[in-house]
Amino acid sequence: MNINVKLPDGNSVELPQNSTPYDVAASIGAGLAKAAIGARVNGTLVDVTSPITSDCDISIITAPRQDKKGNSKFRDTAHQDDALYLLRHSTAHVMAEAIANLWPDTELAYGPPLETGFYYDIKLDTPISSDDFAKIEAEMAKIIASNRPFKRYDLPIAEGMDKLKAENNKYKIDNAERAIEGGAQSLSWYVTGDPSLDTACATDDSANTSEGYWEDLCQGPHVPNTSLIGASKVMSIASSNWHGDVNSDRFQRVYGTAFFSEKDLETYLGKLEEAKARDHRVIGQKLGLFAIDDKVGQGLVLWKPKGGIIRDELQKFIGEHLTKQGYFQVFTPHIGKLDLYRTSGHFPYYQDSQFPPIISREQIKSLADEGCSCSQLANMLEDGDVDGYMLKPMNCPHHIQIYASEKRSYRDLPIRLAEFGTVYRWEQSGELNGMTRVRGFTQDDAHLFVMPEQLDEEVQGCLDLVKVIFETLGLKDFRVRVSLRDPDGTKYVGNPEDWDRAESACIKAAESLGVPFSMEPGEAAFYGPKIDFVVKDVIGREWQLGTVQVDYQLPQRFELSYVGSDNAEHTPIMIHRAPFGSMERFVGVLIEHFNGSFPLWLNPEQVRVLPISDKFVDYAEEVKDKLFAEGVRVTIDKGNDRLNGKIKVAQEDRVCYMLVVGRKDKEAGTVSVRHRSEGDLGAVPTDEFVANIVEEIKTKALGPLVKASN
Amino acid sequence: MNINVKLPDGNSVELPQNSTPYDVAASIGAGLAKAAIGARVNGTLVDVTSPITSDCDISIITAPRQDKKGNSKFRDTAHQDDALYLLRHSTAHVMAEAIANLWPDTELAYGPPLETGFYYDIKLDTPISSDDFAKIEAEMAKIIASNRPFKRYDLPIAEGMDKLKAENNKYKIDNAERAIEGGAQSLSWYVTGDPSLDTACATDDSANTSEGYWEDLCQGPHVPNTSLIGASKVMSIASSNWHGDVNSDRFQRVYGTAFFSEKDLETYLGKLEEAKARDHRVIGQKLGLFAIDDKVGQGLVLWKPKGGIIRDELQKFIGEHLTKQGYFQVFTPHIGKLDLYRTSGHFPYYQDSQFPPIISREQIKSLADEGCSCSQLANMLEDGDVDGYMLKPMNCPHHIQIYASEKRSYRDLPIRLAEFGTVYRWEQSGELNGMTRVRGFTQDDAHLFVMPEQLDEEVQGCLDLVKVIFETLGLKDFRVRVSLRDPDGTKYVGNPEDWDRAESACIKAAESLGVPFSMEPGEAAFYGPKIDFVVKDVIGREWQLGTVQVDYQLPQRFELSYVGSDNAEHTPIMIHRAPFGSMERFVGVLIEHFNGSFPLWLNPEQVRVLPISDKFVDYAEEVKDKLFAEGVRVTIDKGNDRLNGKIKVAQEDRVCYMLVVGRKDKEAGTVSVRHRSEGDLGAVPTDEFVANIVEEIKTKALGPLVKASN
Repeated sequence: MNINVKLPDGNSVELPQNSTPYDVAASIGAGLAKAAIGARVNGTLVDVTSPITSDCDISIITAPRQDKKGNSKFRDTAHQDDALYLLRHSTAHVMAEAIANLWPDTELAYGPPLETGFYYDIKLDTPISSDDFAKIEAEMAKIIASNRPFKRYDLPIAEGMDKLKAENNKYKIDNAERAIEGGAQSLSWYVTGDPSLDTACATDDSANTSEGYWEDLCQGPHVPNTSLIGASKVMSIASSNWHGDVNSDRFQRVYGTAFFSEKDLETYLGKLEEAKARDHRVIGQKLGLFAIDDKVGQGLVLWKPKGGIIRDELQKFIGEHLTKQGYFQVFTPHIGKLDLYRTSGHFPYYQDSQFPPIISREQIKSLADEGCSCSQLANMLEDGDVDGYMLKPMNCPHHIQIYASEKRSYRDLPIRLAEFGTVYRWEQSGELNGMTRVRGFTQDDAHLFVMPEQLDEEVQGCLDLVKVIFETLGLKDFRVRVSLRDPDGTKYVGNPEDWDRAESACIKAAESLGVPFSMEPGEAAFYGPKIDFVVKDVIGREWQLGTVQVDYQLPQRFELSYVGSDNAEHTPIMIHRAPFGSMERFVGVLIEHFNGSFPLWLNPEQVRVLPISDKFVDYAEEVKDKLFAEGVRVTIDKGNDRLNGKIKVAQEDRVCYMLVVGRKDKEAGTVSVRHRSEGDLGAVPTDEFVANIVEEIKTKALGPLVKASN
Repeated sequence: MNINVKLPDGNSVELPQNSTPYDVAASIGAGLAKAAIGARVNGTLVDVTSPITSDCDISIITAPRQDKKGNSKFRDTAHQDDALYLLRHSTAHVMAEAIANLWPDTELAYGPPLETGFYYDIKLDTPISSDDFAKIEAEMAKIIASNRPFKRYDLPIAEGMDKLKAENNKYKIDNAERAIEGGAQSLSWYVTGDPSLDTACATDDSANTSEGYWEDLCQGPHVPNTSLIGASKVMSIASSNWHGDVNSDRFQRVYGTAFFSEKDLETYLGKLEEAKARDHRVIGQKLGLFAIDDKVGQGLVLWKPKGGIIRDELQKFIGEHLTKQGYFQVFTPHIGKLDLYRTSGHFPYYQDSQFPPIISREQIKSLADEGCSCSQLANMLEDGDVDGYMLKPMNCPHHIQIYASEKRSYRDLPIRLAEFGTVYRWEQSGELNGMTRVRGFTQDDAHLFVMPEQLDEEVQGCLDLVKVIFETLGLKDFRVRVSLRDPDGTKYVGNPEDWDRAESACIKAAESLGVPFSMEPGEAAFYGPKIDFVVKDVIGREWQLGTVQVDYQLPQRFELSYVGSDNAEHTPIMIHRAPFGSMERFVGVLIEHFNGSFPLWLNPEQVRVLPISDKFVDYAEEVKDKLFAEGVRVTIDKGNDRLNGKIKVAQEDRVCYMLVVGRKDKEAGTVSVRHRSEGDLGAVPTDEFVANIVEEIKTKALGPLVKASN
């Protein structure tokens, strides 16, 4: 029997059943077959040797070509992600084999690929340190150099479990059990085999001991051969637990990465270096932007004066656009009764990702009076069966209560409520990271209550706002992901017509942005489709920021309504939207994007006047007063350092403009301008400088408007 | 033996020991003696018949004269407060007697004077309702009309207690025990006596049953005669508990008030009516300014769009002045670790006035594992012996951690950190009141870290800011209270020189305001002197708003320091200041002060365009766009109502300007202006109107700048 295989270009090929992606590639051309390292079959990533059993859509994943400099060239981003995923998964096996060779006591637990590499969790009494990395890499190099093929074999479940039990690795047994629970029909191993052996796959245990044979329980897929691993590196070591459970066994987690070429690795390491230099935690501390203090609490950001300026400027900027777009700013408390979150559905179901509730004194007292134990209290907590308050994990319930505080009519809609609302969520301490992963964050939040016929325009409005904001900040390189419902799925709130309308509104709005966008069926929440924004910073890293989410559910749970023009009660649709996501995360990203050198309008210290000696402090004050009167953030360095020293400090402080003033300037009414990145711009009449800088601030220019004189 | 009595005018009189204030008054003049109703002897309020045993300062309290209309005229506010205190205390006795006459089962508990009247807590099974008030008042009128004198007698403690035990009123016994604990040397009763009996004070129990004799255990003081009660009224009834303990006996609390003249009572009741009409809860609901929703929680304010505009405008206004004065805005989380508040001293000592802590999951889990009971947990809570977080009851510890996040030098000081910081405190639910008594409120807070030599200037700066803010809002009638240390007190942090300096800074700054101020020795907190602002609204009610507080303690507790010019470490002084107190309370007061009609710059809806028919909606849009472009908050009423109906609604919505537009306006490019309080101002060229209203907004004018066109 033949099967029909449809290619991405729309053409089809007919092949016998159980042909592999390799066969498909070969039927198109020898070049493609040679380059093939895997495939997407009906969207699922598989080995290049995986048999195809029925008609399907296929996309062959190929190894990249390298340009003259050795940079890998991929067809597109999705392709690149797939190819690197396969490569890194395979490299994880190579590293595990190398470690097991070096430390024969090693018990292997789990080794997945990651976005930037992979890790392997191992159980080993000897602590591995970074001193061992070179040794591990040398062992890996040997394995890679021997061009060993990755080959898969499957065993029926019973037989496979027997084999695992005989090998007596409890983690692998657990992995297998989880795979079976997840619906696996057989158990599979991947062998990193001896290329000299011509057998397809050895299944007898004796082969396990032969040179050039190593296997691991694994669901795959993998690249076909170790030779594809052009470059790899052991990156770091950490400790971890079995499935993240702190009460379970403790592992050593060895992180590594892999690329198709040495040049790719070199580029990656260069970026890492650059990212390290731009680390917002380091810059934030050096420039005095924010502090995180264990006495206050991990993951809780103290915005210091200079960070406060940046946040305030951003909030004012957004605020202006909100007013233009007909939003209203509201203010709501940071706590709410537990019942409010029972109605919204966020308690008790999501309580693990929230701060513990504030249990009322009355309840603890009455439990004490009833002779209850803390164990009973712990169970009640688990079940969400307590009275009291909760730190708000999101602003929606509060905005909903504002909507519900008045009778609404179709004439009132859309109602757009915005708030810089601080919310609190319980991130695990290991996941916290400066401002970008925190426990308290201020969303640039808004909720729109709209009628179905307003959905198009309002979603569009949200995206327009996002676009203006990103472009003003020079974040021109962003893409959007539109999460749609699974066409075969059924568990969605709202009727299919509503969903069609909402999805079409999201897609239309996304298209209109003129930036790359992807549609992701099956990724929508059960209560509505959404749009995510992924921003690329100047060093090419992607950051998931804000989101626009359509919601059919909460208005139902809270029984919201409006009286339509037909005089009947209707349920409004909610749109949740936060272009930045949170002020903390966004400013964290901006610090790294701008490397601490913010555009003038955002920069905490815009101008510093540097008198060349005490004699010119008066004139410096005069210049400062002129700027201050125009709202410019300006200081004077009255210290006794030499001019060069003052300039050095101002450069380190990322001051945008340094105005050196001396005798000539005083006489001529000028300032000698130096820009932190443009350098010396010469003498400029003070009034001209003031006018130009005011313009630069007002227009939120990304670069300097003050130019060198003549 | 004679004693020397010093009068307020500086003169002295010599009188025999045990002379009374009445004797002092008589020695000055018969008129004064006749008017005397009590006295302050060395600052303590006493009966006019209270014997004076040693040299003293004295101020005679007199009954007020009435002007032609019957309004009482007092010497000054302090005098008025004292006279009314005496009168109301005595009227409480009269009401208690009246109630006991009407319901002989009544057990009396406690009946103090209040700022605006008095109450008496009684134990009585029959519920008293407002239907009974007339009956009580009639009985009181009889007592008052019989001109009965108030006379005091004392018994030695043992004898007094025997008497009370014989009478078997457990509340009076408790009162007596508390008085003895408080240092009382004897027990005293006040008799409302029969004027026909010439005996000084009956002490035999038999007299207790005679007509025109009533007595109550009481520390006094009182006015000399019921005839002074010119007007009285039973106001309301509520339920209460013995010393506010909800687990103790339940009382009926009967509230009343009293004045020296009927006219005074009438004026007071008129003010009450006016205050009721201005109730910010009613106006706030009607104008859609804020909502309080039990689903979110009592005492937690949801600022709705229109209230949000007012708050935002106020914050921007303050923000501009903060920038001018060299403050920096910071943002800090709304929670902190319990340890932070252990250091600050706010936990566990003040935990009853705070929300319960957020107990960590780990602790509840480990208590459960250890088999602890909820009773143990309750005790740990009581002792503050728990781990976790707390909602911040104040912003200072967070600002302190910002100060502490860098090494500070004398060159950096003063550091002025400002935050619109929302804090949470646990007010009893019975004390909650709209926006003015809440559980979550946003302070217009700031903390200044200063060197001793900067204290003068910085306290002055705080007061300048307060003055600008109050005056801009037309709150010109305010006074300040300067709380100083008790000259004999010893429990003060900081050395006497520091205190002298700080007190002198506060007094100098208060003097410079040019408003009435009072010095209150002994009222300072143990950690520093402070200044409070008491604002009088348009109907004469006083509101305690913001405060400036010098603090020597927290910098020590947190071990803050700066390196002085002497290269040694020093401890900075902190100033806490919040001119408004909180945004919630302040806006609540402003709503009542302005009766909902805010000045243009604060008013949520500044302009509403009223087209006289559909035909002029286009022109209305044109006018609206012009105003909107200038940042004016403007809407159009496109409804089908007649013009009068549209005006009525706009007036109810307190819109500042209504712009009626019809054919003539369209042709002439004008708008027909109506101001909500000035009425019709005639046709004005649209551009002129725009220019004028922009000016009115910019200057924060209190009244309209758009004038009638001739």
